[in-house]
Amino acid sequence: MKFSKKESKTLQRIIRWRRDVRGNNFLPKKVKQKELNTILSAALHAPSVGYSQPWRFLIINKDSTKNKIHTLFTQQFKKSQAKFHDKPLYSTLKLEGIKEAPINIAVLYKKPTKPILGQTFMKQSGEYSVVCAIENMWLVARSLNLGMGWVSILKPKKVKKILGISNEYKLVGYLCLGHTKHSLKTPELKKLGWEKKKNIKRCLL
Amino acid sequence: MKFSKKESKTLQRIIRWRRDVRGNNFLPKKVKQKELNTILSAALHAPSVGYSQPWRFLIINKDSTKNKIHTLFTQQFKKSQAKFHDKPLYSTLKLEGIKEAPINIAVLYKKPTKPILGQTFMKQSGEYSVVCAIENMWLVARSLNLGMGWVSILKPKKVKKILGISNEYKLVGYLCLGHTKHSLKTPELKKLGWEKKKNIKRCLL
Repeated sequence: MKFSKKESKTLQRIIRWRRDVRGNNFLPKKVKQKELNTILSAALHAPSVGYSQPWRFLIINKDSTKNKIHTLFTQQFKKSQAKFHDKPLYSTLKLEGIKEAPINIAVLYKKPTKPILGQTFMKQSGEYSVVCAIENMWLVARSLNLGMGWVSILKPKKVKKILGISNEYKLVGYLCLGHTKHSLKTPELKKLGWEKKKNIKRCLL
Repeated sequence: MKFSKKESKTLQRIIRWRRDVRGNNFLPKKVKQKELNTILSAALHAPSVGYSQPWRFLIINKDSTKNKIHTLFTQQFKKSQAKFHDKPLYSTLKLEGIKEAPINIAVLYKKPTKPILGQTFMKQSGEYSVVCAIENMWLVARSLNLGMGWVSILKPKKVKKILGISNEYKLVGYLCLGHTKHSLKTPELKKLGWEKKKNIKRCLL
């Protein structure tokens, strides 16, 4: 299978237009089951160490559960504020879309119960496989004109407790998924001047 | 920016045709600087926690360096064999393309020197950002009809020592990049019966 220049350019454009979407940009419009299946299917085609496919997904659409996670976020956002006392912008940022997004997805790493090929010397390669799955989901969601956001101001252990997830699993990502009001050209934190874009020279050792 | 159904399908096909390429499938043909730049540019457009962009890249094309990494791989592959004594297939597998691939890339995580937005409660979200960058690179490489492989049977500290990388950085991935002989439809470890493909029901909690 050979891909054309045009097809590669399409992928590159999707990559450039992917954004981390928060509550100020989600619409209440429902996500179709077919769209969700397409996104999960992309996750299942991610690379995984030793073909272990250690990704697991919990789909959350009940308001009562979302509210509990949102309460947790609010507490932890307040706690984290102290670290950014020199940046007043921090407290004004909308950093999650837990309640606004119709679907939340807890993405988990199933810890191995047997040796995994390729994981002997890099233990974290299992979790890294799950992250590759998340990036596939993010890109496919964007290509379907849906938005996704990754909420990381959440203590994984507390999230797992709310969701009733056992210790066999590690929470890798908590995602919000839905339709968006706008397709943002620029990452919000860049636009607001939180950080500047690093060019390639800055990233080459 | 709206993407069409056709464009989404293109992305989904690239995702399904991405493979982990090893030495038995790399060609000695050179990778153009322009292709490498396109791949690195895709990395730079990955999501990152707090827009921290903590990815750094070391491009390796000297045979002498590759040989040292390859020697390390060989030692560690032998050590890991003991874990798979019940699977004679293991010792026959080609699990890297360090010498065959024209380019190797060490992908590093630059540890933060100040608090990063969103990283307070999920410390690993910095490394996870680097993994998202790797998945972007993998997909764009595939769309350019190049192959990439992730070698994980390597002790990160020893790789860093060979490459002269300081403790400010953590090795997240060691990648091999080049043209390929064949575009494989099926993941090699699936084809060889090492693991079966998990379907979505198996992955939903």
